[in-house]
Amino acid sequence: MRQSQLFTKTLKEAPKDEKSINSQLLIRGGFIHKEMAGVYSYLPLGLKVLKNIGNIIREEMDNIGGQEIAMTVFQPKHLWEETGRWSKTVGEVMYKCREGNKEIGLGPTHEEMLTDIIRHHVKSYTELPLYIYQIQTKFRKEPRARSGLLRGREFLMKDLYSFHSSEKDFKRYYEIMKKAYSKIFERCGLSAIITEASGSGFTKEYTHEFQVLAPEGEDVIICCPKRDFAQNQEIANTKAGNRCPSCKNILNKARSIEVGNIFPLGVRYSKDMNAYFIDRDGKKKLIIMGSYGIGISRTMGAVVEVHHDEKGIIWPEEIAPFQVHFIQVENTGRVKKTSERLYENLWKGNCEVLYDDRANKTIGEKFADCDLIGIPMRIVVSERTLAKKSVEIKKRNEKKAKLVEIKQLSRFLK
Amino acid sequence: MRQSQLFTKTLKEAPKDEKSINSQLLIRGGFIHKEMAGVYSYLPLGLKVLKNIGNIIREEMDNIGGQEIAMTVFQPKHLWEETGRWSKTVGEVMYKCREGNKEIGLGPTHEEMLTDIIRHHVKSYTELPLYIYQIQTKFRKEPRARSGLLRGREFLMKDLYSFHSSEKDFKRYYEIMKKAYSKIFERCGLSAIITEASGSGFTKEYTHEFQVLAPEGEDVIICCPKRDFAQNQEIANTKAGNRCPSCKNILNKARSIEVGNIFPLGVRYSKDMNAYFIDRDGKKKLIIMGSYGIGISRTMGAVVEVHHDEKGIIWPEEIAPFQVHFIQVENTGRVKKTSERLYENLWKGNCEVLYDDRANKTIGEKFADCDLIGIPMRIVVSERTLAKKSVEIKKRNEKKAKLVEIKQLSRFLK
Repeated sequence: MRQSQLFTKTLKEAPKDEKSINSQLLIRGGFIHKEMAGVYSYLPLGLKVLKNIGNIIREEMDNIGGQEIAMTVFQPKHLWEETGRWSKTVGEVMYKCREGNKEIGLGPTHEEMLTDIIRHHVKSYTELPLYIYQIQTKFRKEPRARSGLLRGREFLMKDLYSFHSSEKDFKRYYEIMKKAYSKIFERCGLSAIITEASGSGFTKEYTHEFQVLAPEGEDVIICCPKRDFAQNQEIANTKAGNRCPSCKNILNKARSIEVGNIFPLGVRYSKDMNAYFIDRDGKKKLIIMGSYGIGISRTMGAVVEVHHDEKGIIWPEEIAPFQVHFIQVENTGRVKKTSERLYENLWKGNCEVLYDDRANKTIGEKFADCDLIGIPMRIVVSERTLAKKSVEIKKRNEKKAKLVEIKQLSRFLK
Repeated sequence: MRQSQLFTKTLKEAPKDEKSINSQLLIRGGFIHKEMAGVYSYLPLGLKVLKNIGNIIREEMDNIGGQEIAMTVFQPKHLWEETGRWSKTVGEVMYKCREGNKEIGLGPTHEEMLTDIIRHHVKSYTELPLYIYQIQTKFRKEPRARSGLLRGREFLMKDLYSFHSSEKDFKRYYEIMKKAYSKIFERCGLSAIITEASGSGFTKEYTHEFQVLAPEGEDVIICCPKRDFAQNQEIANTKAGNRCPSCKNILNKARSIEVGNIFPLGVRYSKDMNAYFIDRDGKKKLIIMGSYGIGISRTMGAVVEVHHDEKGIIWPEEIAPFQVHFIQVENTGRVKKTSERLYENLWKGNCEVLYDDRANKTIGEKFADCDLIGIPMRIVVSERTLAKKSVEIKKRNEKKAKLVEIKQLSRFLK
């Protein structure tokens, strides 16, 4: 894409009411636009990142048998009354609106709705297990929405619900999901620690959270500084200052961001909502359920909290809005001509390029925008590089640039 | 996909409270699930159709310079107060909810929100024109939501807004959009008539609607029975019984479904919201706007209203959930073995196949489901066809089946 045609502009300073690093950098880079506290619109660059994260999740959910659907935001009150959650627990964070005499909820989560769909369609053990997910906008009341994309009133989430005929089968899938989650966060450039947590309003059983260490995180977890993060599960629920049960190191407190969580639901919902199946033995039994969430917009915010420097964002490759930021230093003559040609060639070679063809910007401004926007690789064409029949290449997360001959460029990018 | 793994089941009869053909067939086929009047969740088959329509629209909008963003459902009251629409006109169909003392709107349309984004980012005529769109869920109060996907309280919409420095440039783009819309509906299998309409609550200027003739349509338009539908614009606003100004035929009344609309907005929003640009002559001027909507879920409903028979839906190729419905008649022996092999080969050849491998269904049930779901092409493998080293192929919109030799199959499908 030509940057001259991108309608968003960068800002030198973030709005004063934005306190979090993620929202400051994302607003300054033109990724998002604040509508109100905890409510952000996604501009072209931001939507690209959000879609990239969504597509990684979609791939990994499809890989483990997920079937994608799209449930509605509007929640019928009668379903939530079946589980008693309309006024209690979740009901307290649910936005509600009216039409005539009727109250309608805005979905903060979709257990009731999907259990209702499943009890309409599933009758036999032969139809289980099932893994059903959606990527959908959710709404939750947040009195303290001050952390940009980390804590939204309106936010994008992947929620998968699994349905099983036995506890054993549920446990099998729960472990498969843990691995899929670790892979998703790894592909997004995040090291997620699996922690055990006590049940929240959603469940009374134990649950697992995927936590990313970050100084601005709103959660506090206990972790062992010398161990592989993904192995830390057994030290959850101990105290800072205690010793790690495995390596005997002193445990630390660390701030972190919860990017995902997985819940055993047991028969909590199927019981209240009469979601039965006929088992192999001919008996009517309650369906066993699990739920598995990832905050997609929150993951985007977490990536920015973890991957940035004083100049701007440093996007991990797989979720970056573009792969290459291509900058022409002079806007005329052979620099312009060569840049246009190389840009066209890169596109034809399926390389996603943002081409800074803006004529009214100084090279200093172009470089500052490039660092702020944070595309993984910068390619610069100037009179100086062309004198050596080359372009200058620098990775966003490295200090040093190097010259690459133009005729070697496509091979180099592969 | 294996049909044995699809969690949705077909229904022989539609729920009694569903009166429209589109919702009856879509619910019976397992495409959608009703949550409340005018509010439907999309199950795997339905989501596939919805995404296919969305992707056609995305392609055509990108082709004419569209930049995709995603604005929020939540609408800040103060923006709508700038245009006076919070309580009047659109305000009356807007759902509203509360958080503490604050009222928040649910977006029925996004002129205010995007004009706010644009006034933050655009300063000069050099940055215009701009064409910005989203594919997003919208909410409108509908006291009479009785037509399935045709009239939703919660529905999926594409809305594009264009921003221009002159009326002339706006008119140029308006005509480009008309052509893009005609192409979109054609690709979705619909003949859309362009009609001129007087302004609604959204605008006082003339507007254009894209109407699809259907007996169940909620609109009534005047059209000439002997003319190309796309040419009918000049006969709008005349009366049934009058003669067509061109061919002198008597004009008819016809029921129709509005699948899209395009509005010249002039400076209606830029004036109230102070959205200016600096023109070539150095003067500050108001940005000229247009808006262009397509009801995506409504288009899906319109397709079903137009393309069905007494047995079920007949999906147009480009939006069908799968290209081929592949049915094995016997579930054992060489029929099973050949079917499995052919199914794998079709997938490898990038053919989207729904494979009816269900062992607990009679062939009569399989054929009935196939007709109901409405995939464009049916391929049947049985002992009888294998005796001739063939499969039987029938298009959903044709009566007659024919035998095709297995070794010719992949060539035939191309």
